[in-house]
Amino acid sequence: MNAHLWPAVVLLGVTACTNTNPPLRGTGDLGLVVERAAGSVMLIETTRRSEIGRVAGLGDLSHASVVFSRDGRYAYVFGRDGGLSKVDLLRGRLERRVVQSGNAIGGAISQDGAVVAVANYVPGGIRLFDAATLEPLGEVPTGAKVVGIADAPGNRFVFSLFEKGEIWVVDAADPRRPVTTRIPDIGKQPYDGFVTPDGRHYIAGLYGEDGLALVDLWNVGAGARRILDGYGRGEAPLPVYKMPHLRGWAAAGRYLFLPAIGRHEVLVLDRTTWKEAARIPVHGQPVFAVAQPGGRRVWVNFAFPKNDVVQVIDTASMEVVKEIRPGRAVLHLEFTPRGEQAWVSSRDDDAVVVYDTASFAETARLRAANPSGIFLAARAAMTGF
Amino acid sequence: MNAHLWPAVVLLGVTACTNTNPPLRGTGDLGLVVERAAGSVMLIETTRRSEIGRVAGLGDLSHASVVFSRDGRYAYVFGRDGGLSKVDLLRGRLERRVVQSGNAIGGAISQDGAVVAVANYVPGGIRLFDAATLEPLGEVPTGAKVVGIADAPGNRFVFSLFEKGEIWVVDAADPRRPVTTRIPDIGKQPYDGFVTPDGRHYIAGLYGEDGLALVDLWNVGAGARRILDGYGRGEAPLPVYKMPHLRGWAAAGRYLFLPAIGRHEVLVLDRTTWKEAARIPVHGQPVFAVAQPGGRRVWVNFAFPKNDVVQVIDTASMEVVKEIRPGRAVLHLEFTPRGEQAWVSSRDDDAVVVYDTASFAETARLRAANPSGIFLAARAAMTGF
Repeated sequence: MNAHLWPAVVLLGVTACTNTNPPLRGTGDLGLVVERAAGSVMLIETTRRSEIGRVAGLGDLSHASVVFSRDGRYAYVFGRDGGLSKVDLLRGRLERRVVQSGNAIGGAISQDGAVVAVANYVPGGIRLFDAATLEPLGEVPTGAKVVGIADAPGNRFVFSLFEKGEIWVVDAADPRRPVTTRIPDIGKQPYDGFVTPDGRHYIAGLYGEDGLALVDLWNVGAGARRILDGYGRGEAPLPVYKMPHLRGWAAAGRYLFLPAIGRHEVLVLDRTTWKEAARIPVHGQPVFAVAQPGGRRVWVNFAFPKNDVVQVIDTASMEVVKEIRPGRAVLHLEFTPRGEQAWVSSRDDDAVVVYDTASFAETARLRAANPSGIFLAARAAMTGF
Repeated sequence: MNAHLWPAVVLLGVTACTNTNPPLRGTGDLGLVVERAAGSVMLIETTRRSEIGRVAGLGDLSHASVVFSRDGRYAYVFGRDGGLSKVDLLRGRLERRVVQSGNAIGGAISQDGAVVAVANYVPGGIRLFDAATLEPLGEVPTGAKVVGIADAPGNRFVFSLFEKGEIWVVDAADPRRPVTTRIPDIGKQPYDGFVTPDGRHYIAGLYGEDGLALVDLWNVGAGARRILDGYGRGEAPLPVYKMPHLRGWAAAGRYLFLPAIGRHEVLVLDRTTWKEAARIPVHGQPVFAVAQPGGRRVWVNFAFPKNDVVQVIDTASMEVVKEIRPGRAVLHLEFTPRGEQAWVSSRDDDAVVVYDTASFAETARLRAANPSGIFLAARAAMTGF
C-alpha cells in the first residue's frame, strides 16, 4: 500500500457485541437524513414516519451522499472530506470509518454489493473498498476531478472527468485489477452524470458547453454522442446559483426530466429519439427533478434565492400543477420506493417534512439539524444509485 | 361479519416472545421458495446464496404466490385453498394464518403497505385484510373468477373477471368502503394481467380471443383498448399445455416481452405505439418471460413437455443467445433486484439453482421439496407485484 496514495487511513473496529439486541425489524422501510453541519445522520423509518436514532462523528457532510448494502442493513456515507463511513442502521451506530482522501464527491456500490467505490477530487480518481470490511482493494487514478459516479450492470462504475472531458467505465469484477475503458472528447467540463434506470445509458451534463453527453453502455466502443445540443445553457442570462444535480433524474415512460443549468426550465428528453421533447417553465433554477415512483409527477426543488418552494409537474400535461412550501432552503427530496410518500428537507427550518403524494397533505414534520440529503434503504435494490 | 361470506376464518395469534432473538440482519436479501407439495416455504438469502430456514403448515400451495410487507420482514403467502399466511422471515415462523375462501388465486399489497387483497375464484371477488393483523376489512364480490390481480398507485387494486370479460379497478384508500370502477367489454376470458413497472398501464391476456386488453390507469374512464389483435392465438396448432403467466412481464427499454399462448414464440410489444414489434421463436410454449434487471436479457421457461430448458433472449438482437438446463420441470425464475443472480426452480429434481447472470455459471444448488415459485423480499419496493 502506497502511503501517498492512501494518505490517512483510520479504521474503527467493530465494538464488542452487547447482550441486549435492538428489537427485530425489517430494513426495507429504513433510511437516513444527512445533518450536514453537525456531521451526523438521523435514522428514520417510513412506516410510522419517525426518527429512530442518530449517528454522529461522520466528519464533513456538506454535499454528502449515501449508498446501501445489498441486505439494506448498512449505509455507506461519503463525506466531503474523503471520509467513508459504514453505519449500522439496526444498531444505530458507526460500524467503521476510513478517511480515504482529502476531498471526495460521492460514491457507488457494485451490482453484487461487494465493492464500494469512492470518487475523489483530490488526488483525483476512484478508490475501491471491500463493502464488508472497508479494506482498500484497488484504485484508478485519473489526474482529474471525478464527478457523476454511478454503478452500472456487470459490476461496473461509470464516471466523468471534469478537467479532461472524458467518461471512464471501470469494470470492477476483480476489484484488485480494475479494467478501465476511456471515452475521450465527450465535451467540456462534465459536472454530473447518471445511469438510466434500465442500466443501459450514462448521461453526463456539461458545464463548459451547451448540451449533454450520452454513452450506450451496451456499446461503449461507439463512444459518446452529444444530445440536447444548444439547449440554451450558453445563453443563460442568469448567474448559476447552484449546480443542478442530474442524479435526481426523473424517468416517466419515454421521457426523462432534467434540470437545466441556469435557466428556469426543466428539460424533457425523449428516450426513444434522444431529442428534446419539451421545456417546462418553472419557478427558479431547478436543482433536483425527481420522478414520483409509480406516479405521473415530477417534483422539483430550486436554487437560492428561490429555494423555499417545491413545484410538482404533471408528466402528461407537462405543466406545474402544484406548489408547496415545506420551509426555508429545501435541499433535497426522496420518495418511498412505491411513491406514496415524499420526504423533503428544509435546511434553514431544521425540518424534514413528509407528504402524502396523493393529497399533498403534510403527514409528519421531524426535527433535524440543518438537514440536506435524504436516502432510503430501498436504494439498495436499484441500479444507478 | 357474515359467516357465509367469510366461511372459515382461523386466526393463529403471535406466540410469546422468546428470550433469545435470532441474530440481527437486514431483510433486503431475503426471500422464499414455495414447496408446493409439502405446503411449506424455504427461506433463503441471496448474499451467500443459502437456505436459512423453513416454515410449514401453509396448506395447499399449488399455484401459490407471495407479496411482502413494506419493511421486508413479512411475506404474505396466497394458497390455492384460500389460505392467507403471514410468515416472519426473521424469526422463520408462521405469524398468522387465515383461510379466507375455498379457492383463491393470488393477491397483492397496497401501495402504502396497509392492505392485503386476496383474489378468489370461489365465491368470486376480492377480500381486503389488515396487513398487520390479517383482520378482514372489506370485500368486493364479483360473481366471476378473479384473475390477474395487481396493485396500482393510489392504493388501487386492478384485476380481471374471467367469465365476465371485465377489468375492475378498486380504490382501497378506505378499505372498509372500497370504490370500484368497472371496465366492461374488454374481450373474452381474460386469464391473467399485470401492471407495467411505471404503474401506468394494466394489460390483460385474453384466452377466448386473439389479443390483449390495455387500460390506461391515468384515464380509466376511457375504457380498454385491444392490442396485438390477431397475434395468432386462434390459429395455434398446438394444444395449450400450460397457460403462460403474464406477471412474468419483461420490460426492456421501449419493449415488453410477452409469452404467446400455445405458440412457440415470445411476442415483443412496443410501449410507445402498443404495436407488435417482433416475434421471437423459442424452444417451446413459453410460461414466464422475465427481464433481467439492469440487463439486456430476457429469460424464458417453458410448458411441459419441454420444461427442462431455460432460454435467454438478447433484447438488442431479439434472438436466443443461450440455453441452460437447470433440471426437470423448471417452474419459475426470479432475479435479484439488480440482476446479478438468477434463481431457478426445478420441481422434479427438487432443486433451486442459482446462476451468475454475467457468466451463466451455476453458483449454488439448494435442495428443496418440489419447488415452484421463488419470491424475493425486494418485491416490497416494486409497483405491480
